[in-house]
Amino acid sequence: MHPLLTPLSASLPATVPFVGPEAQERARARPFAARLGANECGFGPSPLAIAGMQRAAGDVWMYGDPEMHDLRAALAAHHGVTPAHIIIGEGIDGLLGNLVRLTMVPGDTAVTSDGAYPTFGFHVAGFGGRLVKVPYHGDHEDPGALLDAAARNPAKLLYLANPDNPMGSHHPAATVEALVAALPAGALLVLDEAYIDLAPPGTAPTIAADNPQVIRLRTFSKAHGLAGLRVGYAIAAPPLVAAFDRVRNHFGVGRMAQAGALAALHDADWLAEVTRRVAEGRARIAGIAADAGLVALPSATNFVTLETGKDGLFARALLQALLERDIFVRMPGVVPLDRCIRVSVGPPEALDIFEAALRDAVRAASGG
Amino acid sequence: MHPLLTPLSASLPATVPFVGPEAQERARARPFAARLGANECGFGPSPLAIAGMQRAAGDVWMYGDPEMHDLRAALAAHHGVTPAHIIIGEGIDGLLGNLVRLTMVPGDTAVTSDGAYPTFGFHVAGFGGRLVKVPYHGDHEDPGALLDAAARNPAKLLYLANPDNPMGSHHPAATVEALVAALPAGALLVLDEAYIDLAPPGTAPTIAADNPQVIRLRTFSKAHGLAGLRVGYAIAAPPLVAAFDRVRNHFGVGRMAQAGALAALHDADWLAEVTRRVAEGRARIAGIAADAGLVALPSATNFVTLETGKDGLFARALLQALLERDIFVRMPGVVPLDRCIRVSVGPPEALDIFEAALRDAVRAASGG
Repeated sequence: MHPLLTPLSASLPATVPFVGPEAQERARARPFAARLGANECGFGPSPLAIAGMQRAAGDVWMYGDPEMHDLRAALAAHHGVTPAHIIIGEGIDGLLGNLVRLTMVPGDTAVTSDGAYPTFGFHVAGFGGRLVKVPYHGDHEDPGALLDAAARNPAKLLYLANPDNPMGSHHPAATVEALVAALPAGALLVLDEAYIDLAPPGTAPTIAADNPQVIRLRTFSKAHGLAGLRVGYAIAAPPLVAAFDRVRNHFGVGRMAQAGALAALHDADWLAEVTRRVAEGRARIAGIAADAGLVALPSATNFVTLETGKDGLFARALLQALLERDIFVRMPGVVPLDRCIRVSVGPPEALDIFEAALRDAVRAASGG
Repeated sequence: MHPLLTPLSASLPATVPFVGPEAQERARARPFAARLGANECGFGPSPLAIAGMQRAAGDVWMYGDPEMHDLRAALAAHHGVTPAHIIIGEGIDGLLGNLVRLTMVPGDTAVTSDGAYPTFGFHVAGFGGRLVKVPYHGDHEDPGALLDAAARNPAKLLYLANPDNPMGSHHPAATVEALVAALPAGALLVLDEAYIDLAPPGTAPTIAADNPQVIRLRTFSKAHGLAGLRVGYAIAAPPLVAAFDRVRNHFGVGRMAQAGALAALHDADWLAEVTRRVAEGRARIAGIAADAGLVALPSATNFVTLETGKDGLFARALLQALLERDIFVRMPGVVPLDRCIRVSVGPPEALDIFEAALRDAVRAASGG
């Protein structure tokens, strides 16, 4: 332990939210044949975004605009809000870190679901916050339980991902709108909509852009296929958006990232095409799963969570058997979600590899 | 003010460390003809880095390796240390933010020079720290005064940029080595070496890689011409490096950024070529300045600070006159440094524009 760390820093665990597939490949000394574990978009980014990044490559000697004017303006127009409602950051992860920093002091409480996105908890812990977790209800995050916990503690932040990761479930807009209406005073809803582009129509709630109790998080990492560029954004009331300027890394979203995201945003055709291919891929994964005796849970995302019908030990063995067959997938970390494995939709070639391996992997996990 | 902000967040000023040239262009409703204000590398990144980024563009659907294994290994080899001595972040700015977070609690003190890199102070303030500033001495940061202030307060962090920004001056290695030897117990030297690639031989000090009292900051933004990618790194003792993992945005340096930086690092020829062009450009700026009655201060960086021989009012008027002539330059912010303007080395075409305008701008600033 370094002697100059603050007591809080020194107390933090060394565990990280996710181990990347590259670290697993290094440990195995063998690359994966199918990369289906990080909910990336294997269909790739928009050709216009690729071209935009390639054009921008020669210009990266210039810092990006720290006000991110053009991208903010485009996002504002896209969402029917003003640029003062938009803050862009280094992925949703980066925005979550700054949000927790802006709103929580050590001892403050945040509420989330047990098994939901771990990076939120990483940041809450990182700023000394207390994380209260409520169980999922029927593979859905449970708005009622989240509200109860937020009121009881009370909580500064209430995290809800809709659609949900890792279960792929979603709530209709009306459920989220009811949650917003019932928020305790003093609580901010952190609405993680990373997967919203891939959800059924009617999933995105209507929320007044000036509502001071909600921040909606979006990303270019999923449907837009730009995970490796690191661009997320939030829609929130202007006073909250303005507060990010007091703490953020002002040049953190660089010229290349802004160029790629802006081009992707303008390619609605590619987004529609990806959405179509993701829907196809979900159906195919469900079929592959059924052939192997697993059940695909309904998904509003670019991944499918597969119910093994057994327990966490079995699912972990299945995950391991797939990894040994060079297939990178992940699984939920907590009971009872951990009876499942989580498979990202990928292009047909990747799903071919998954299909060829799954039955054998199930057999291996069953000790057969 | 948003009601959910912490008292610290609510108390922070809305001012930002730098206003980008793009914001100035929007305010002027006219683009700059010569971009010479942000110490960017107008010679561009290495052709190998451009090609590497263009190749990576199609792969950015994948998150970058959060352990940044390949780039860390290459940097470690480059510096003769181990990967455990290297932490990579979203520019030096991003690393400074996490460093302050890891080491300072509200009320702790950091020491810097009055007029030195403002983003360090931005982060110190952002985490509730107290910033003690000591004057420059003869256009150099003053190691003795910094040490005195660090011992007196006492300080957790002592910031020194070598070479210095905004004055372009530098201390020889021995001076920095003496400072390291004299550090008070409990103080960490934050040695910002953003410009070190462009400094004379003998500027980089020898510091034991395991010294727990030093963190050296480097960047791909200056000599490597990748400012718009956002890749900086630090060399420090492994326990301090490991601490960053407890708080950082683990996927924050994305696949594109890692690809570009790795390719740039391997192109030593381009770095040598840029170094040569920067030296030529410094000499040319000095000549242009002399023709206009200004004096170029010696520079160990990719910019030249020009002594007007007058006061801050004059320098500000000169800056304004240059901006009106479509030339983006900056100037130091505090007395007595603010008698100068700061001109980044750019390619010949940009310096042509500067040359064509400077005498006229000096005349205008003189009220003539």
